[in-house]
Amino acid sequence: MKFADRINRLGTETAFAVSAEATAFASQGNKVYPFHLGDLNLKTPANVLAAGIKAMQDGRTNYCPNAGVAQLREILADDISASRKTPYSMENVAIQPGGKPTISKFFLVMMNPGDEVLYPNPGYPIYESQIEFHGGIAIPYSYIEGKNNFDIDTDMLESRITPKTRLLVLNDLQNPTGAECSPAELEKIAEIVLKHDLYVLCDEAYFDIRYEGTSNSLVSLPGMAERCVILHTFSKKFAMTGWRLGATIGPKEIIELIIKLNVNEESCSNHFVQYAAIEGLTGDQTETQQILATLKDRRDLAVDLLNDIEGIRCIRPNATFYLYPNVTGAMKKTGLTDYDDFRRTALHETGVSFCTRLHFGRPLEGEDQYYIRMAYSGIEPAEIKEGLDKFKAFIEG
Amino acid sequence: MKFADRINRLGTETAFAVSAEATAFASQGNKVYPFHLGDLNLKTPANVLAAGIKAMQDGRTNYCPNAGVAQLREILADDISASRKTPYSMENVAIQPGGKPTISKFFLVMMNPGDEVLYPNPGYPIYESQIEFHGGIAIPYSYIEGKNNFDIDTDMLESRITPKTRLLVLNDLQNPTGAECSPAELEKIAEIVLKHDLYVLCDEAYFDIRYEGTSNSLVSLPGMAERCVILHTFSKKFAMTGWRLGATIGPKEIIELIIKLNVNEESCSNHFVQYAAIEGLTGDQTETQQILATLKDRRDLAVDLLNDIEGIRCIRPNATFYLYPNVTGAMKKTGLTDYDDFRRTALHETGVSFCTRLHFGRPLEGEDQYYIRMAYSGIEPAEIKEGLDKFKAFIEG
Repeated sequence: MKFADRINRLGTETAFAVSAEATAFASQGNKVYPFHLGDLNLKTPANVLAAGIKAMQDGRTNYCPNAGVAQLREILADDISASRKTPYSMENVAIQPGGKPTISKFFLVMMNPGDEVLYPNPGYPIYESQIEFHGGIAIPYSYIEGKNNFDIDTDMLESRITPKTRLLVLNDLQNPTGAECSPAELEKIAEIVLKHDLYVLCDEAYFDIRYEGTSNSLVSLPGMAERCVILHTFSKKFAMTGWRLGATIGPKEIIELIIKLNVNEESCSNHFVQYAAIEGLTGDQTETQQILATLKDRRDLAVDLLNDIEGIRCIRPNATFYLYPNVTGAMKKTGLTDYDDFRRTALHETGVSFCTRLHFGRPLEGEDQYYIRMAYSGIEPAEIKEGLDKFKAFIEG
Repeated sequence: MKFADRINRLGTETAFAVSAEATAFASQGNKVYPFHLGDLNLKTPANVLAAGIKAMQDGRTNYCPNAGVAQLREILADDISASRKTPYSMENVAIQPGGKPTISKFFLVMMNPGDEVLYPNPGYPIYESQIEFHGGIAIPYSYIEGKNNFDIDTDMLESRITPKTRLLVLNDLQNPTGAECSPAELEKIAEIVLKHDLYVLCDEAYFDIRYEGTSNSLVSLPGMAERCVILHTFSKKFAMTGWRLGATIGPKEIIELIIKLNVNEESCSNHFVQYAAIEGLTGDQTETQQILATLKDRRDLAVDLLNDIEGIRCIRPNATFYLYPNVTGAMKKTGLTDYDDFRRTALHETGVSFCTRLHFGRPLEGEDQYYIRMAYSGIEPAEIKEGLDKFKAFIEG
């Protein structure tokens, strides 16, 4: 059977293989501590759930407009306008069946084969995959580990710009590092974007998963709203991962084309689910706030325990539900120098399951520090404690 | 702003413009008879709705596997195996957020730029759009109006095959014509497929919307299951259009790639909605059968009334919820020789809103008969009667 050539360039989320290995190990009767999961083990707030059910019962079971329910588009535009200090109206919003569809649609609308696209590496592996699948050239930029944050290596980023560079992917509040751009970093990026006439996919999936301070967005800077397309999702803030609802927010001309792609690819997003999102944005926030409080407690517990392990140092990000500890020393102690060996041995000896740097893009030349990614979105405090105690014993021998 | 070149090749469903015109006309206080809608104005069966709600309350609100819930894949594989008399297992099934996603994913997996693809015209306009968007060459084949059916012009179809022809789109039980392949037609198509080494997208969205007899599928013929990918949807049978649930069913090697595309494009389909579909396939069928009975009554009423209008002849299809009356004589009588003039004048003088041949692909050279498409899925019998009485008066003067 002969497939399209582009299939050879299609990547995937290799993290699913980690899930499969953990499931297989658990099915043999072993205890697994699931730090690999990017999903939430928390319930959707009851008022949001109830609004979804009411919409079903009210007969919101037929098609809705391709761009989404008008009321949701308006409310979301207001919400984004306020949090990004930038005026958006419903014409700037296209509802999507999840956050992810914005990635492929952005590239389909903005990228020609042969165009170069800067993307974060380590980063969410779907950028690399979709850029190459649709014929673009994926040019990685990296992060520098600081004391309290991973900083974008903006020198590296700028040095890789060529006359063929057209697009930039920015995942501020980042998966897997938890990195957050400082105001100065955002300004530097805006300067680069203007200087080199770039358009930007701002993956802001974790914008509202924030424990202290305020999230900032590149779109708030002068000249940026015209050049940025925001990937928005309802999945994280309202623990709605399985509902599949998100949105693309950006310049009207781009959103019109994205809506035309909606017509072509899925007609519309689920109709009644959009009423649940309206309740999420406008209704009682008690349970939504509780999700953040729960995650913050888990973060603090996990960071403290990790930093108490010899050979591990772990930054405490103010946002996302990921930790990206540097385990260079720990790996050396165990004598395991290969990422997969380290990960599998840890799983089999302790039940602690996590992803490594390898699951977030093809490693770059010259990397000499080792990192793993631990998500705390799908694991209870008692298991965080038990798992990381075993992990400590495993490392420290 | 510079967009990707492929955007120039992106089509749409121009039928949405008809909807917009009808809505605008109605908002001025006019009565509209909505024969243009491809949506159902019927409720999802109560047991299916209840199963969806139960799944939400049971916490099926997190991610599910990229390929879909295993139980649904198994049940659907059994269902398709029985109705198509062809063995499928869950490995042959990838759940999708609607029927439509199968179209773009099929072309992304199977079609290279420059490949020629045979597609029905008149036909669902998204085939033409997606073929050209992803760089293929869309080669139309047509239908011949018979006494009781539209037949595929298989001579035309075969004559247009070249060494570059790789794929065929077959929409048996067709939108807009209601056409159905005879066993002999299916055999002829299977022969062509084998002779020319083609792969086939079988859009079977209306397979279960059937009033008399039994639907047949190309996949049941020898050698075809290995070469056919079925577009399946839960939208029509269970009046679930707004739920967005469908499936891709085909050879394991293709389905594996489609699942990899699921990972890339939307992670998974809505989790709890899949439990509603399980109830639809396995639970009480009373209300599901009632949907068909309701549609059949509407069909008979509309066909009888249309055939009672001078200058109109209308085939009575055994499947789909579309009618494709030949209005050549009627247009002549009104003196309106342009499709859009005829459609708009009818709307403004009678309130009857419908699509025309123009909404189903670029017209082919030499067409000398005129057709409109009337859907009866979104209109009640009293309105069918009232609307078509006015339409008769409009035509007959």
